[in-house]
Amino acid sequence: MILELVDLRIHPGKQDEFDEAIRHGVAETIAKSPGYLGHQINHCIETPERFVLMVYWQTLENHTVDFRGSPAFTAWRAVVGPYFAAAPVVEHFTLLEKAG
Amino acid sequence: MILELVDLRIHPGKQDEFDEAIRHGVAETIAKSPGYLGHQINHCIETPERFVLMVYWQTLENHTVDFRGSPAFTAWRAVVGPYFAAAPVVEHFTLLEKAG
Repeated sequence: MILELVDLRIHPGKQDEFDEAIRHGVAETIAKSPGYLGHQINHCIETPERFVLMVYWQTLENHTVDFRGSPAFTAWRAVVGPYFAAAPVVEHFTLLEKAG
Repeated sequence: MILELVDLRIHPGKQDEFDEAIRHGVAETIAKSPGYLGHQINHCIETPERFVLMVYWQTLENHTVDFRGSPAFTAWRAVVGPYFAAAPVVEHFTLLEKAG
């Protein structure tokens, strides 16, 4: 299992609209892709323009090849891209430990 | 429930040692603090010096007041601090959506 961690900065004042857009975008694109295992959407308290999206995939290639190479990726960016104030910062992680 | 997201950069070549240190540090300090609900330790694939620690707390103050004001915080930083190549970046999040 691989964690995709996406650090997002959106235009100020658009948090409520973006909250709707990202939920819809994930449900319609990412959550229907091969190897998708789950996700979590988090909203920053100190920096209201910051959101962190976590997506769990079976393999790294499920995200970097299958999803990014699919029409679903274009559809995803069409939904959420207009809100971005900066390019998203995306890296992948292995899980070392989980509790609770 | 509040997510504390900690972005860590450690000295190159110390990943295995740090892996042990952070597991031990969390178990002995954070996991014993009031309001602790769970945690996850993640290791970055693209940037091996990057780790992301997620800690779930009942309230924001369980982290910012109770934990940071306790001797456990000093003990935690004594265990993991020597590995840090930069100051940790820490912010808090509310959970908007979770699936899977």
